[in-house]
Amino acid sequence: MRIVVAPSGFKESLGAEAAADAIATGVRRVVPAAELDLVPLVDGGEGSAAALAGLTGGRLVDSVVTGPVGQPVRAHFAVLGDGRTAVVEMAAAAGLRLVPQDLRDPGRTTSRGVGELVLAALDAGCGSVLVGCGDSGTSDGGAGALQALGARVLDRRGREVAPGGAALAGARSVDVAGLDPRLAGVDVRLAVNPHNVLCGPRGVARVFGPQKGASPAQVDELAAALDNWADVLRRDLGADVARRPGSGASGGLGAGLHAVLGAPLLPRFDVLLDHVDLDARLAAADLVVTAEGAIDAQTPYGKVPGEVARRAKAHGKPVIALAGTIGSHADSAYAAGIDAFQAIVPRPVSLDEAILRGAEFLTDAAERVLRLVLVGTRITTAG
Amino acid sequence: MRIVVAPSGFKESLGAEAAADAIATGVRRVVPAAELDLVPLVDGGEGSAAALAGLTGGRLVDSVVTGPVGQPVRAHFAVLGDGRTAVVEMAAAAGLRLVPQDLRDPGRTTSRGVGELVLAALDAGCGSVLVGCGDSGTSDGGAGALQALGARVLDRRGREVAPGGAALAGARSVDVAGLDPRLAGVDVRLAVNPHNVLCGPRGVARVFGPQKGASPAQVDELAAALDNWADVLRRDLGADVARRPGSGASGGLGAGLHAVLGAPLLPRFDVLLDHVDLDARLAAADLVVTAEGAIDAQTPYGKVPGEVARRAKAHGKPVIALAGTIGSHADSAYAAGIDAFQAIVPRPVSLDEAILRGAEFLTDAAERVLRLVLVGTRITTAG
Repeated sequence: MRIVVAPSGFKESLGAEAAADAIATGVRRVVPAAELDLVPLVDGGEGSAAALAGLTGGRLVDSVVTGPVGQPVRAHFAVLGDGRTAVVEMAAAAGLRLVPQDLRDPGRTTSRGVGELVLAALDAGCGSVLVGCGDSGTSDGGAGALQALGARVLDRRGREVAPGGAALAGARSVDVAGLDPRLAGVDVRLAVNPHNVLCGPRGVARVFGPQKGASPAQVDELAAALDNWADVLRRDLGADVARRPGSGASGGLGAGLHAVLGAPLLPRFDVLLDHVDLDARLAAADLVVTAEGAIDAQTPYGKVPGEVARRAKAHGKPVIALAGTIGSHADSAYAAGIDAFQAIVPRPVSLDEAILRGAEFLTDAAERVLRLVLVGTRITTAG
Repeated sequence: MRIVVAPSGFKESLGAEAAADAIATGVRRVVPAAELDLVPLVDGGEGSAAALAGLTGGRLVDSVVTGPVGQPVRAHFAVLGDGRTAVVEMAAAAGLRLVPQDLRDPGRTTSRGVGELVLAALDAGCGSVLVGCGDSGTSDGGAGALQALGARVLDRRGREVAPGGAALAGARSVDVAGLDPRLAGVDVRLAVNPHNVLCGPRGVARVFGPQKGASPAQVDELAAALDNWADVLRRDLGADVARRPGSGASGGLGAGLHAVLGAPLLPRFDVLLDHVDLDARLAAADLVVTAEGAIDAQTPYGKVPGEVARRAKAHGKPVIALAGTIGSHADSAYAAGIDAFQAIVPRPVSLDEAILRGAEFLTDAAERVLRLVLVGTRITTAG
């Protein structure tokens, strides 16, 4: 039996690679002879660079950059197996995890370190830079990243605005004359969730501001500042990014890099999964096992298990999903092509215990699920 | 597909019949055309009489009897479909649930109501009485039940001892002259867990006393009283019940009824499952689904899923078990013939929520498990 194991990470509990390993261990207990193809999947957020480096035979390059609250942070980017494509995971430089709990104010945090990572990739000689969006701790419309790359964001007196999204309320112009000239010869792309937009009622300030630490008043202030930022980008650069799909990715990083660098905003799974050749691997499978922290109403809409199922169905392959939590309206997963799903918890447990013992629970659950599948093979044989 | 659904109840959450219904609902969501044979299984404890009445086309007969702390309780026994076999569930008259929390002292509680239920069955014209043991709140060696049936348990001055196990320390003789004469013509049997014995280090006082509310000192006192009771039964009736398998059933009810009435102590599943024709039903199944509150190291040793699996294996049938909790060393279930098992919790939840939502969780889990089995049938088809 050839089994593709293609999980997402389990937020706060397991990275995608650890999840794939845990599942594989459980599967091997039941079908020791199974041919396992491990494809830990990433969504552009935390762990994406490492996973893509691993899957393509590439490497990670460390770099100390400016963190989201101005502190130096040890970040990294990946050079993929082709030797020329860099993957800059924005969360490595400006992720929410890098913002201390007591400083969580998306009006103040900066994406400057993301621009610094892009420069480091250029220094490393990469000719193509894929910026993975997700898990960001910033909402500065990409202004910080652009400033690191040499652009200037100026107020009405011609002074650089302060770091953070709130200060964009005072932005009046963007000066791109000082951009690093190497950027002209480099292919920069962004892997984004296309459902994220910069402005409007579903704009990034309103949807993600609260979870990044903004109060209702701060959300209003931030939304207005980003509206102004969209106006500035349109006026100075002719880029209409207010409601462009993906412009809201990573607190508006998508908007800034698209407007200034012309970087395309690509649906994250299309671009990320192409790099790992997922379709060809699915085509060779007898069974596909995917996983994510939750299976719920959102699963069909751009989550890893939904995306894996959609692609597996194109090849007629059965798909099983494992989840830390089976949430409300999880049945929608069936419509997305997931044939069966299962929670990994073995008994009533606290969320803390489930997070702490994620790998163990996932391994045991994979074993149990495979045993149930084997029962099915026997029924057919008997019938 | 013909599926036998043969669950135990889920203690504190679901009776066996409710569990069978919940599983059936989940199965039908996936395989609407499945032929379902529901066999809610009982272990002699709470719910056994009702379940056996339901399974055999019999009926329940209500009767008010003396409860374990002397209060009147509304109890019942079953008359099975054959019209002549009564099932007296001891827990209906003297179960732990009938002992108020603040009166939980197994040295004081009485099994008198069990004897009264047997008399009610005789009044109803039953020629055979099967006493189901389990979930008892008493440890009186069956003395109370025997007194209700007309026997006298006397101290050294020839007075009746007080109710409860502790008073058996003062027992010196048993007088059976006044036993209800109808008992001579009636076949009385006990369905017991053969692992329960009256005396010794694994005797009923030491193993079950604490969960019935006894302190360590009370356990010692009770163990000594039951030792004396065994001596009296041996001396007066020639019955050696101290370590006989099943003599400790329901706080020694097994010992008393065996010694005085000659009632055989039968392994509970052998006698109970014969009444529901389980073997013939398993023989006709394509798949067997069983369930219990827990799957753990004890599963192979006289628990419902283990017993179902043992019998299903005699017919080569695949067995799936659902559990509220997958406990330690659950893997031992595989050796018992359970091919696959699964927990019913859909996410990290408290025990209270799991108990409260047992039926819903069980239905959803049955659905998920059947979907996994169906994935297996497809893999075989494809291969």
